[in-house]
Amino acid sequence: MRDVAIIGIGQIPVGEHWDSSLRQLAAEAAQAALRDAGLKAVDALYVGNAFGAAFSEQTHLGALVADYAGLNGVEAFSVEAADASGGAALRTGYLAVASGAVDTALVLGVEKATDTVGDARTRARNVSLDADLEAMHGATQTALAALLMRRYMHEYGLELSAFEGFSINAHANGARNPNAMFRNMLKPGGFARAPMIADPVNLFDSAPDADGAAAVILTSAERAADLVPQPVRITGSAVATDTLALHDRPDLLYLGAANRSAYKAYAQADIQPNDVSLFELHDEYTVLAALSLEAAGFAERGQGWKLAQDGALGLNGSLPVSTFGGLKARGNPVGATGVYQAVEACLQLRGQAEDNQVPNARIALIQNLGGLGATAVTHLFQV
Amino acid sequence: MRDVAIIGIGQIPVGEHWDSSLRQLAAEAAQAALRDAGLKAVDALYVGNAFGAAFSEQTHLGALVADYAGLNGVEAFSVEAADASGGAALRTGYLAVASGAVDTALVLGVEKATDTVGDARTRARNVSLDADLEAMHGATQTALAALLMRRYMHEYGLELSAFEGFSINAHANGARNPNAMFRNMLKPGGFARAPMIADPVNLFDSAPDADGAAAVILTSAERAADLVPQPVRITGSAVATDTLALHDRPDLLYLGAANRSAYKAYAQADIQPNDVSLFELHDEYTVLAALSLEAAGFAERGQGWKLAQDGALGLNGSLPVSTFGGLKARGNPVGATGVYQAVEACLQLRGQAEDNQVPNARIALIQNLGGLGATAVTHLFQV
Repeated sequence: MRDVAIIGIGQIPVGEHWDSSLRQLAAEAAQAALRDAGLKAVDALYVGNAFGAAFSEQTHLGALVADYAGLNGVEAFSVEAADASGGAALRTGYLAVASGAVDTALVLGVEKATDTVGDARTRARNVSLDADLEAMHGATQTALAALLMRRYMHEYGLELSAFEGFSINAHANGARNPNAMFRNMLKPGGFARAPMIADPVNLFDSAPDADGAAAVILTSAERAADLVPQPVRITGSAVATDTLALHDRPDLLYLGAANRSAYKAYAQADIQPNDVSLFELHDEYTVLAALSLEAAGFAERGQGWKLAQDGALGLNGSLPVSTFGGLKARGNPVGATGVYQAVEACLQLRGQAEDNQVPNARIALIQNLGGLGATAVTHLFQV
Repeated sequence: MRDVAIIGIGQIPVGEHWDSSLRQLAAEAAQAALRDAGLKAVDALYVGNAFGAAFSEQTHLGALVADYAGLNGVEAFSVEAADASGGAALRTGYLAVASGAVDTALVLGVEKATDTVGDARTRARNVSLDADLEAMHGATQTALAALLMRRYMHEYGLELSAFEGFSINAHANGARNPNAMFRNMLKPGGFARAPMIADPVNLFDSAPDADGAAAVILTSAERAADLVPQPVRITGSAVATDTLALHDRPDLLYLGAANRSAYKAYAQADIQPNDVSLFELHDEYTVLAALSLEAAGFAERGQGWKLAQDGALGLNGSLPVSTFGGLKARGNPVGATGVYQAVEACLQLRGQAEDNQVPNARIALIQNLGGLGATAVTHLFQV
């Protein structure tokens, strides 16, 4: 198996891109990554996208984006795993290059979410829930996250304020990221006063769906060293799954797939959780941030929320997370989120994170969840 | 790069499965393949599906099917490339096993098409066309195939009857396949009298969308030899793309992606077209069958239709195609079709094709197209 490295990254600002179509967003990020790598062509394109059919009546994005991004003819197809689609596309690119069948692969995540609004968006987004056992009974992802959060609060005797630190940290980092959707800091007391979306999930517990596209270019580690000054090695890559339907899980507060994929990746890279310099986690809801920290070995069960209390998660803390604002403040361009995480981790490891730089970043952990942890894709990057 | 082989196959009858949901169809095929391989578990599941969102309001099929098929926890995600989704899933499984990252992979194709009918189905199916340049102007895949067919007839001075042989052959083979949707032979004169769908595409030029699921299990060729008596080696695997929109192609009657992916696969396997024992081609429309034969090197340009005139494509002919009925008679369970092709090729190479057996089958070529050749996935299987 060949070692794999990232030699190019590209992203566009996350937000509401009403003037650009799905293919335009995709092409812009692809071309930015090609420029960054100093390449004009690649051998393959893997597109992460979750809601093309539901939001834009457009699938078959492999061939479409290849053509529109100036890569007509290359191997190309789409990869889908709900909110973890971007991570799954990265996994596919990793497998292709590791196998030796593909020399350079462009992994692209793209989502166009904001053209669809109101009930239509809720219904469209529900396609990634269990259609028969959840969505058809009126559940939404946020409503299910609320059940999870209420259970967490009940089980560990917590108030809503226990989760505030995750959002404060995400917004503080997002405020310094020119590509973030929300660049405002959370005002003192703002979290407690935020409107409820699905009690107890309030506006600041929940990440906004957004438009966006991000891309990374992969090649063999051997070749990467000749091509760019700062290749980023992928030293761990793992996917695991759990039941889609929350009620089928024996233990609601244990993200089994997140746990197993993280520990598989640690074993591949031969590291321990405390070797990690920063963690781009899937903070679509604050309760997912807490559970992800527990699943990936950074806190005992029921203790993940505590890390958000004392500054440990800040850029200069013991475990920086959501270093460019995370899903909460950078925004959640669903199928692109996993690739944004990859781009951000590369910026940190290359020392190009500017105002968001984590000191001495050497090992980055990124974890992209689909649904409420039904799919978990974990990668480890190192320089 | 490790050599890869197929050690298990499974399929369910193609047709209208009104009593089974998407996940049930998928699980049935997965379990059949596991039984065939004598396995209880695999390391990964890659699901080919084209229209889950549009037809069933259900995506996130990797985790969903893994759970429902008794594989909860494994690496799993979906792969999409319109009608070539099944082929693209096979490509993903091949890359995963070839890389060494995954030891055994279950590649599953599944589609549930027949719950959605009439205009809703047409609109749902259009998501794989170019949404901005084709679908929004009223084009459908069949309407575009009609343009292609008319151009072919015009350019080469042909009548509709030139295409009849493809359908007669497909139905003759489908009639002997217990898993085929249509098991009727075409009556003499039936083709000429068939109702038009989109002139000149008539009812017998066009494959029916259907429900279905099929699965293959991949492992390393080295391991395969210890596990099953008749492993089928994958000696070629290639994907190529072309523009989605027909009007963007410099030459309408040249399937460039089909050509390039076929010749890449030949080069990998170090064979020539005339070494091929049988060809499972993507006969969604008869004109695609003619163009596929030309693209893959079995006929000069403008001559593909002639092969259907003289029995060359029959089970005992020089190049048997659609040996279990093809998309035309076996049916086209869209995202599953590429995996049905793989299962059928394995049956031929194992000598288990019963009434549909091609004598001395040694090398099978399978080619799965997305859209009208915008994506082409080609594999070569050998025993």
